[in-house]
Amino acid sequence: MIIIMKAGSSDAQIEQVSEKLKAMGMGSHVSKGIERTVVGAIGDERKIDIEALEVLPGVENVVRVMKPYKIVSRVSHPEDSVVDIRGIKLGGKQIQVIGGPCSVETQPQMDSAAASVAAAGCRLMRGGAFKPRTSPYAFQGVGVEGLKMFRRAADKHNLPIVTELMDVRMLDTFMEHDVDVIQIGTRNMQNFDLLKEVGKVQKPVILKRGMSATISEWLMAAEYIAAGGNHNIIFCERGVRSFETYYRNMLDVTAIPVLKRETHMPVIVDPSHAGGKAWMVPALARAAVAAGADGLLIEMHPCPSEAWCDADQALSPEELTALMGELRAIAAIMGREL
Amino acid sequence: MIIIMKAGSSDAQIEQVSEKLKAMGMGSHVSKGIERTVVGAIGDERKIDIEALEVLPGVENVVRVMKPYKIVSRVSHPEDSVVDIRGIKLGGKQIQVIGGPCSVETQPQMDSAAASVAAAGCRLMRGGAFKPRTSPYAFQGVGVEGLKMFRRAADKHNLPIVTELMDVRMLDTFMEHDVDVIQIGTRNMQNFDLLKEVGKVQKPVILKRGMSATISEWLMAAEYIAAGGNHNIIFCERGVRSFETYYRNMLDVTAIPVLKRETHMPVIVDPSHAGGKAWMVPALARAAVAAGADGLLIEMHPCPSEAWCDADQALSPEELTALMGELRAIAAIMGREL
Amino acid sequence: MIIIMKAGSSDAQIEQVSEKLKAMGMGSHVSKGIERTVVGAIGDERKIDIEALEVLPGVENVVRVMKPYKIVSRVSHPEDSVVDIRGIKLGGKQIQVIGGPCSVETQPQMDSAAASVAAAGCRLMRGGAFKPRTSPYAFQGVGVEGLKMFRRAADKHNLPIVTELMDVRMLDTFMEHDVDVIQIGTRNMQNFDLLKEVGKVQKPVILKRGMSATISEWLMAAEYIAAGGNHNIIFCERGVRSFETYYRNMLDVTAIPVLKRETHMPVIVDPSHAGGKAWMVPALARAAVAAGADGLLIEMHPCPSEAWCDADQALSPEELTALMGELRAIAAIMGREL
Amino acid sequence: MIIIMKAGSSDAQIEQVSEKLKAMGMGSHVSKGIERTVVGAIGDERKIDIEALEVLPGVENVVRVMKPYKIVSRVSHPEDSVVDIRGIKLGGKQIQVIGGPCSVETQPQMDSAAASVAAAGCRLMRGGAFKPRTSPYAFQGVGVEGLKMFRRAADKHNLPIVTELMDVRMLDTFMEHDVDVIQIGTRNMQNFDLLKEVGKVQKPVILKRGMSATISEWLMAAEYIAAGGNHNIIFCERGVRSFETYYRNMLDVTAIPVLKRETHMPVIVDPSHAGGKAWMVPALARAAVAAGADGLLIEMHPCPSEAWCDADQALSPEELTALMGELRAIAAIMGREL
Repeated sequence: MIIIMKAGSSDAQIEQVSEKLKAMGMGSHVSKGIERTVVGAIGDERKIDIEALEVLPGVENVVRVMKPYKIVSRVSHPEDSVVDIRGIKLGGKQIQVIGGPCSVETQPQMDSAAASVAAAGCRLMRGGAFKPRTSPYAFQGVGVEGLKMFRRAADKHNLPIVTELMDVRMLDTFMEHDVDVIQIGTRNMQNFDLLKEVGKVQKPVILKRGMSATISEWLMAAEYIAAGGNHNIIFCERGVRSFETYYRNMLDVTAIPVLKRETHMPVIVDPSHAGGKAWMVPALARAAVAAGADGLLIEMHPCPSEAWCDADQALSPEELTALMGELRAIAAIMGREL
Repeated sequence: MIIIMKAGSSDAQIEQVSEKLKAMGMGSHVSKGIERTVVGAIGDERKIDIEALEVLPGVENVVRVMKPYKIVSRVSHPEDSVVDIRGIKLGGKQIQVIGGPCSVETQPQMDSAAASVAAAGCRLMRGGAFKPRTSPYAFQGVGVEGLKMFRRAADKHNLPIVTELMDVRMLDTFMEHDVDVIQIGTRNMQNFDLLKEVGKVQKPVILKRGMSATISEWLMAAEYIAAGGNHNIIFCERGVRSFETYYRNMLDVTAIPVLKRETHMPVIVDPSHAGGKAWMVPALARAAVAAGADGLLIEMHPCPSEAWCDADQALSPEELTALMGELRAIAAIMGREL
Repeated sequence: MIIIMKAGSSDAQIEQVSEKLKAMGMGSHVSKGIERTVVGAIGDERKIDIEALEVLPGVENVVRVMKPYKIVSRVSHPEDSVVDIRGIKLGGKQIQVIGGPCSVETQPQMDSAAASVAAAGCRLMRGGAFKPRTSPYAFQGVGVEGLKMFRRAADKHNLPIVTELMDVRMLDTFMEHDVDVIQIGTRNMQNFDLLKEVGKVQKPVILKRGMSATISEWLMAAEYIAAGGNHNIIFCERGVRSFETYYRNMLDVTAIPVLKRETHMPVIVDPSHAGGKAWMVPALARAAVAAGADGLLIEMHPCPSEAWCDADQALSPEELTALMGELRAIAAIMGREL
Repeated sequence: MIIIMKAGSSDAQIEQVSEKLKAMGMGSHVSKGIERTVVGAIGDERKIDIEALEVLPGVENVVRVMKPYKIVSRVSHPEDSVVDIRGIKLGGKQIQVIGGPCSVETQPQMDSAAASVAAAGCRLMRGGAFKPRTSPYAFQGVGVEGLKMFRRAADKHNLPIVTELMDVRMLDTFMEHDVDVIQIGTRNMQNFDLLKEVGKVQKPVILKRGMSATISEWLMAAEYIAAGGNHNIIFCERGVRSFETYYRNMLDVTAIPVLKRETHMPVIVDPSHAGGKAWMVPALARAAVAAGADGLLIEMHPCPSEAWCDADQALSPEELTALMGELRAIAAIMGREL
């Protein structure tokens, strides 16, 4: 940690910084420049609050030199981590496409969806039984009954299931229905009590990026899960809030190489929620794989125009199949398979 | 709802839109312009998903003409709502300043803080027993014991207490300790299960704006609480995420007049979390009152440099007292008191 | 244009809107819904200011139904436009990579750069003689002398040259030195007088997106050039401002399919200025081609660590050559060549 | 300047950083921490490019410790600078409100506007003869003839005039018509050639903040003007781009205290362009003065609904007069006058 003093700070002020560091169990080293003095803190800075130093008189700015995340950091684990989902590997050579509808609606809809997902070559399936909706008057998901329908439909094709957990009280139910991958949604990325709970189970967790979360905050949210003991974490970029109104969210494609550098955990992308329109999905999906993503989360509905939510962003089964072909070719260029 | 068709859309496509509206229980009205055809939907558009129309072939864009919020809308309740907090009125002529530390630390700290808050002329007190922290390794709050310390300290000065609820499982405990105002923090603004639960109790709720929530999403989050039956809602603007790095968040001062126009519920501002530095608080607090805020949430610590969190954003008791004087004068110009 | 009236607007107010439209040479059509009345304007809405209607009493909101851009719109020209740059086609089947240093430094540097650019398989070369720098104390470019060095170096390899025009007074000099493609930089995207001037010449123009320009504003900036008579416009996405601090700008990869849908003109991407780091360039370049870009603008320096500006974002000649191979493979999947 | 090395960087890499600094004319100081080594650069870091260090192997990050701005910095000039505009002081005890229409339209309109501006108590007048419009098909201003009308109307009331310069070639004309204050608009904040030219004259310059300019970039844009010799610079906050769509721009009220701390030059606010609606102007104007602004730029039109541009954001003469009364009262609380 580097404490930059204001121009004209006094020796007493510099001394006070060193004293404060000492009280925090840190050493210090003072370096006087031409215009500014800087104090270097020696020790593990992760334990200390930056604010407690910034408040001291004469301090201009405090800069961390260590990364605040530990377990999820690639420094602590240089090789890629591969998450095993009932035998399906995510984060290794094989790229995984997780397909399925926005929400579970009926058993026939899920049966049809599962058949199409499997036929398209996907090895995992997605579907929401509990839906976070902006309006309290909108469809909120079919609930626990949906988990059962989902399980039944997916099991026929041996597809592990991915579904969103919104309420910490529902975790036991998820475990009972043996949900294979727990998804933490955008709006809950910093629901710290929820993160702590999924950190206690050993189910793989897809952690979606918060609507305007920095990459650092996102890594720290994952650190909450990891600190609890669950290291089966998959990052999912799904677009962030921006000033642009043409599409729903701005897909942050640069986050892919950045995360692959900063963390050893797998990184997937949700092009469906990013753009918000089915016609944008193929371009965004191809870009994600070309940028190094380990997988994709793609909405597909047996009949998109009849979907109960997000009707305009789901691909049809035929569109998904066609896209899989393109993605397979790009994966090969990347030295991977799909 | 207005459905704008693409240039060159066919009669069959226009007909399909009308049919879809009919199936949704809505009437329609087609109007052909020079370049574009628009279809007007007649009926209560709040029940229908915009996406189910956007997905139809030939549709360019769908525009709502009704506001999506009802109970919180000023249209449904033209007069200002006044929230009664154990006899203290928020949203009426009197502007309320809620003072207190970021977090509950010890009984002496809370006793000292409560005395200073009361002495400065504040009628309500804030303090966090559960803290949402970016890092799992940072101080997480003293927990339930903190609620007791807070209650004890505040009761001596007859100050109603305001504290943050992060975990839905803790609501019963909050009710047992008779927390006067439940605060829903930024990271939980769209934690819909939490919103639904506080909608079932009759405690006043301060709903902080999400990190990058639009005003419309914020109003809809309040609508979740209101739809449950709890209409004692107080909006709290606390700065939003932006590209600027000089300060922590960008205080959206324009949100104050906008909310006062759109909703009948009170609007307060948290200048401490917005700027993130104590020296910015007076300017932002004055601006908020001058823009029409009904109250403020201000961090004050008996000894800021010793605070366990956010040390650099708390005012000292003397600074708070001085600020109260300035705010009182501005309130008078606004035809209010403080 | 649709004028949405406030709930409870009076007949007189509705009448006033129709009168105003009539005075503007437009027809009108009134449609009364359950809660709201909407007035449809009939005629060419591009001529009229939305604000002149929004100011009328009783008006809630005004929505355009036509696109504000005409010449650049794909509606007016459904086929892709191909820009011809001294025989090199941009916007057709062949994807073009424009390589070269951030700034022109010396003749040997440019000679070496040109040789490497050509050797890597690029058909056009970039380099700045005039540099827009945040600080007045930073290197501002070598100026006119740089145009000569650039011309000399590029001509040996028959590479058309691309260079930035910052000052309208320098246009004649650019024409004298026969600059092949004029680049309008991010900071000048809405320098309307500059746009008007380059609209009068017939040189191809690369129009970079403004730091936080919406896609609509960007299309309108191009419309300024097109309205002057110059239709040789190439859009260049180069990342936009965001809250993320890990990299310089957020590459808006979604803008690629959006622009390809909205305009017939070619779309290229500058991955070097987007990320701001050389190690991010290959991932972003691959993503851009996979998303449908017609070309790339990539910084390469004979010796990156010795570059006079943006040293950390230039590829070495070897890195550029390696990247070209990857891009060629992705282009093939897209049914294109490179 | 502090160079933070990566965890595990080698001694040779650290040595290379020191060598590079030496070649740049700087001294260095190496400090080894527990996980990281940091190198401190000694000398005037403003002369050197941060990128030339970031590119070196083993370097994680480079942090400046000096402010990049010099002349505009409050460090170099601790007292407030007061800009003298034909005897009117801006930046001193008196707060200045600059009123007038968005654009110059006709002589009678300007005569009427000038009379109202003076009657309301304003001491300076604004009005645009050249208008930066998003669309090439929108009204572009009446041009040079407008300067004459403006001059004539304002002179009757002895009001100095403020008007926008968009094109560097028009500067001589502005000098001939003796424009009192040159306004540099949002879209030209980083039109560096324009900044350099207005740096050579001694006219006061209002420098509006770029659409998404950081405060640091804004200060550096002012430094361009100041470096040319013109120190009569007035900063004008006018709202920045954000994700919020309810209003036009987000007024960054926090920028006011920040600028007052960082620079000695006056700071004014344009509440009209920020919100974009007349009904928002009073709240934003009061907030700006309460936050410490030295002045305001407010749009007023003799008949807002007839204005040729931005009709919905202009106050009427009566509204301006009423607002002046409120602002006067707030100014008094701030120890100022108006």
